[in-house]
Amino acid sequence: MNIGIIGLGLMGGSLAKAVKRYGISKKVYGFTNSEKNKKEIEELGLVDELVDLETLKKVSDVIILSIPVDAIISMFPNFLDINEKTTIIDMGSTKEYIVKNIPPKIRKNFIAAHPMTGTEKNGPKAAIDNLYEGKTVVLCDLEDNANMHVNKAFKIFQEIGMRIVVMNSHEHDVNACYISHLPHLISFGLANTVMSHQNPKEIIALAAGGFKDMSRIAKSSPRMWGDIFKQNRENMLESIKSFEDQMNEAKKMIEEERYEDLENWMKKANSLHEIL
Amino acid sequence: MNIGIIGLGLMGGSLAKAVKRYGISKKVYGFTNSEKNKKEIEELGLVDELVDLETLKKVSDVIILSIPVDAIISMFPNFLDINEKTTIIDMGSTKEYIVKNIPPKIRKNFIAAHPMTGTEKNGPKAAIDNLYEGKTVVLCDLEDNANMHVNKAFKIFQEIGMRIVVMNSHEHDVNACYISHLPHLISFGLANTVMSHQNPKEIIALAAGGFKDMSRIAKSSPRMWGDIFKQNRENMLESIKSFEDQMNEAKKMIEEERYEDLENWMKKANSLHEIL
Repeated sequence: MNIGIIGLGLMGGSLAKAVKRYGISKKVYGFTNSEKNKKEIEELGLVDELVDLETLKKVSDVIILSIPVDAIISMFPNFLDINEKTTIIDMGSTKEYIVKNIPPKIRKNFIAAHPMTGTEKNGPKAAIDNLYEGKTVVLCDLEDNANMHVNKAFKIFQEIGMRIVVMNSHEHDVNACYISHLPHLISFGLANTVMSHQNPKEIIALAAGGFKDMSRIAKSSPRMWGDIFKQNRENMLESIKSFEDQMNEAKKMIEEERYEDLENWMKKANSLHEIL
Repeated sequence: MNIGIIGLGLMGGSLAKAVKRYGISKKVYGFTNSEKNKKEIEELGLVDELVDLETLKKVSDVIILSIPVDAIISMFPNFLDINEKTTIIDMGSTKEYIVKNIPPKIRKNFIAAHPMTGTEKNGPKAAIDNLYEGKTVVLCDLEDNANMHVNKAFKIFQEIGMRIVVMNSHEHDVNACYISHLPHLISFGLANTVMSHQNPKEIIALAAGGFKDMSRIAKSSPRMWGDIFKQNRENMLESIKSFEDQMNEAKKMIEEERYEDLENWMKKANSLHEIL
């Protein structure tokens, strides 16, 4: 099997490392539009060969899209002439809008996946070993795929050490919103709260583990996250509302000095960690 | 020098370990009200000797208060008969209300400190090595202390590897609010947002590094944090307002589909990390 990866940043670059390490792919081909990234990918030796898109389509048994979610949609017309045995896997963080827009002609070939892993970094230099090992990958709406394509996806994700979970794409987008997209927006919001203060440097000089953890993902790529918030807009708005309700409740208890109620509210938050 | 530590949980227990390790204290005495904690402290060997409060006051050259911030205030009457050479250091996360309430008779002895370090855990078993090394401690309103007491505090914090910063207590409470207290409230709020969803278990099954980091401090002690939010009430309300403004701005940009503005807003958040 030959694997071709489109986009070799954090996710795609780390995947190239993983499939090489486990010997899953005879050769790993790569494609990127960015001249800057080409140079970095070559210096880092992430793939066996960087090729043009038409070549990648011909030589790959599996094509993996690890590019921003809007770019995934824009790529669709390029795959209309794909061989029916070629599997395409997208690794975007949103799934419903992507699945809805897959051209019928390639629907059977196209596996909608979301590996639940990452870091706040981006670009080829962000690629790391072991990004995927022991992590969960969500595969959506598999009933619309042909089994041979499902099995190729299963093989790759299992061999790089991932746990597979299946879900419909709507359900995925709701869950991913609460567990990943909303937390990112909150982290950006907290970072901006501090940056908007009159004295950010003095405040940040006191940062310890709590703030560092809470603001880490506020380093993430605005380009990539803008697309995600756009594609998951309705769930985002609903989850923001739900988070606002919690913060308003807390604010009201502090305003009204109802500290026993506030403690109970925090105890409820503690209980998350009986599950997590 | 003998050091007596009142409260031997995460902060006090870790301090006991540090002063022993660096040989700063001839003997380390401890006092706690909790029978459960007494047993754990003894099993863990955190101090040389657990004593009653009156004994601790007599044998200690430095008394360190590592108890919740309301308990610090309640302890004040116990120190009115303290020897004028005995230094008292409180390690609470709020400073202005504490400093305002120090009885004039012990004002010169009483050093208001806030070590900017911690974990989400509490109790004697939470005590760890190296909690303080390389971290910052804020000392407040030192102009009201006698130099001999300031120097004893400097000695202890420096010898356990901390960086000292001085600040007035009001300024401290504003800064600590943005860098620590507000982030804790937000983490509790995010945890409750997920817990209030109809399907928390299914959502949490997808948790990766981002959510784990964002919700870690939502495991913190409700008792301890209730007191902090109470003592820093005004700054909390102001910082919540400022955070709400950021979240409302983000929500509005998503509602109105102004994704370029949203990207710029995220870029501003990214810039935090040029400082941090």
